[in-house]
Amino acid sequence: MVSVGAQVHELRLAEWTRGMSRSVLRQMIAVVSRPDILSFAGGLPAPELFPTSQYAEALTQVLVADAGALQYGPPFQPLKAHVVELMALRGISCSEEQVFLTTGAQQGLDVLARLLVNPGDEVMLEEFVYTGVQQAVAPYRPCIVPITTDLEEGIDVEEVEAHLVAGGRPAFLYVIPDGHNPLGVSASRERRQRLVELTGAYGVPIIEDDPYGLLYYDGVMEPPLRAYDDEWIFYLGSFSKILAPALRLGWIIAPEALIPRLTVTKEAGDLESSALTQRAVAAYLDAGHLPAHLTRLRAEYGRRRDAMLSALHRTFPAEVRWTEPRSGMFVWVALPEVVDTAELLQTAVDQEQVAFIPGHAFAVPGCLALDDARHCLRLNFSNCSPERIEEGIRRLARVLKEVVP
Amino acid sequence: MVSVGAQVHELRLAEWTRGMSRSVLRQMIAVVSRPDILSFAGGLPAPELFPTSQYAEALTQVLVADAGALQYGPPFQPLKAHVVELMALRGISCSEEQVFLTTGAQQGLDVLARLLVNPGDEVMLEEFVYTGVQQAVAPYRPCIVPITTDLEEGIDVEEVEAHLVAGGRPAFLYVIPDGHNPLGVSASRERRQRLVELTGAYGVPIIEDDPYGLLYYDGVMEPPLRAYDDEWIFYLGSFSKILAPALRLGWIIAPEALIPRLTVTKEAGDLESSALTQRAVAAYLDAGHLPAHLTRLRAEYGRRRDAMLSALHRTFPAEVRWTEPRSGMFVWVALPEVVDTAELLQTAVDQEQVAFIPGHAFAVPGCLALDDARHCLRLNFSNCSPERIEEGIRRLARVLKEVVP
Repeated sequence: MVSVGAQVHELRLAEWTRGMSRSVLRQMIAVVSRPDILSFAGGLPAPELFPTSQYAEALTQVLVADAGALQYGPPFQPLKAHVVELMALRGISCSEEQVFLTTGAQQGLDVLARLLVNPGDEVMLEEFVYTGVQQAVAPYRPCIVPITTDLEEGIDVEEVEAHLVAGGRPAFLYVIPDGHNPLGVSASRERRQRLVELTGAYGVPIIEDDPYGLLYYDGVMEPPLRAYDDEWIFYLGSFSKILAPALRLGWIIAPEALIPRLTVTKEAGDLESSALTQRAVAAYLDAGHLPAHLTRLRAEYGRRRDAMLSALHRTFPAEVRWTEPRSGMFVWVALPEVVDTAELLQTAVDQEQVAFIPGHAFAVPGCLALDDARHCLRLNFSNCSPERIEEGIRRLARVLKEVVP
Repeated sequence: MVSVGAQVHELRLAEWTRGMSRSVLRQMIAVVSRPDILSFAGGLPAPELFPTSQYAEALTQVLVADAGALQYGPPFQPLKAHVVELMALRGISCSEEQVFLTTGAQQGLDVLARLLVNPGDEVMLEEFVYTGVQQAVAPYRPCIVPITTDLEEGIDVEEVEAHLVAGGRPAFLYVIPDGHNPLGVSASRERRQRLVELTGAYGVPIIEDDPYGLLYYDGVMEPPLRAYDDEWIFYLGSFSKILAPALRLGWIIAPEALIPRLTVTKEAGDLESSALTQRAVAAYLDAGHLPAHLTRLRAEYGRRRDAMLSALHRTFPAEVRWTEPRSGMFVWVALPEVVDTAELLQTAVDQEQVAFIPGHAFAVPGCLALDDARHCLRLNFSNCSPERIEEGIRRLARVLKEVVP
């Protein structure tokens, strides 16, 4: 019989979990997703633009015709061929052997972090950045090196270089070159090229996260970093914003020599991505639906961006500043410094049933500019019609009038 | 301009990757999945038994009716309610608040390992065990404590206890109580109960992996460990073997207090599991199809097991031993010690176009009994008709005749 007295044990968790915190962002989204709230808070694409019936056809076709559709199976090669074509649209030349399919781009981040980061390593992040990358590196308790972002030109390459010149060797630098989340900025071509030079010169890999690159609204698009370098740039792509999030399908473009290690690391995480989804997305793409769909997305999201920018211009106080995104889903707004956007959110929800995300939710640990974020906020424009956007910005302007003298 | 001379850099990977090896198992499966091979190698369920048309109906229904089906969204509560019902079938009483949905049971393993294991911790595994758990813990470079398994009664509880009495405190113990992969054994009720006593007495959690528990063939089923304890047992369930692997949907039953931490850890891995799949599986279950489907699976897999056992009995040399599984998909065969099953596989594939997995593929690092595995092999019986099973065992028997004097 077991007998170690009446000792009471507590479950011992891994040490990194002591610093664990739920993404402030995802917590807030839960709060502000009440149906009566007009929300600019989430990062949701527009469900009315999902290619639902075409995807349903693709699913049915695949389930009828392909006995492997519901089985375990290796990555579906025809989908890799489609990704190569998609990448060409984006200005990237790559081979099927460099395409690694993932269960969404978040898994791409997770797998790369696991492969690249030793516990306690430096990781270089912009001061305000997508919280998913912060969560992906948290288990390694890294030393975050925060980098400033210019709201016109993108990440501050001088700062990156200064850190490398001083001997810093982060496990990786993470960038969102287009339609930055949360800042809405797209990096200038010059900064992209200088980042690529730095990555090779110092041997520091870059994870380039590009969920929004094909959603551009001014007819021009800069090539991503991966277009300039195929050795040090790990490119993350996703079907979530161009088709639908529930596909949970993304990809990494990586050097071919690294694919076997990515495979082992991904297998540990979820064995494989759904054979059915891989085949259905390939069937949807086979049918040639994507070009028209992308044109439609760009037109509609462009209209929504324009509606938001023009409503901000018409209704917000003159001293307020905001970014003017050329792609993506977000506008970053800097209010006068007297405003605390966490308090403002409460008022906005209570009085006007309108919501956004306060800027501090995106600050990385150790961010020196945290105080700069207390008067900033992120607005999403992809998930409301232009009319709702105008209505929401009007409501926000009314709330602002009370707090900005 | 960047200028650090002509220095050439090599990509620096995390240290754990030095010990990285592709799952021998998954490599082999690639080798033996040539269409001309009669394969007992994989762990594949029978695709002809997938509820394909009913699932296609569920998908269509959900895509037509539910605007949230392709969007981001929180875990789908009605599916959790179904999991609670499924668990009741398995003898487990739990609440929806204890159900945590995962992208397959492998993700459950990955998330629990990340939450429970510090680098260098002890982890307790049976000597021959599902390779996915070995991959899930590899990044923590744990000290594996190998435990013997009795082929009639299951994991050696005395060994587990001796290690704990001696002061060992593994981060967790992993067990597959029913239809063990690769050994085919189901643990006796007494051993289950003693394990549960030990886990509480010493404060060592158990990860109970139960993909095969509802696939039992002799009309009786022992309750899983989780039926006896809701504090220290983390139960992993999966739809892969009872519906289809390409759903990539599983669950953890865990103490409610731990769900927020599981949530953060899973979000870091893949944000969320597919909203579409969660809704479609719930719709399939709503329609009431599962009980008849499970009855059909048990009947057909039971027939296949019987076909394999009786073919082994008729055709294999008298000195060969094998397990007689009451559930699951696998038979473990011990040949005379002179046989090396890695060599045998080559001969079997070349001469008779029949395949299996050599036992050593499942050995944990540091396994003392590795030599005991060289003459063992795993056979899968779920993925061939009874006729093919008889044909395949006949072929294997011919190969054996040449090597067993």
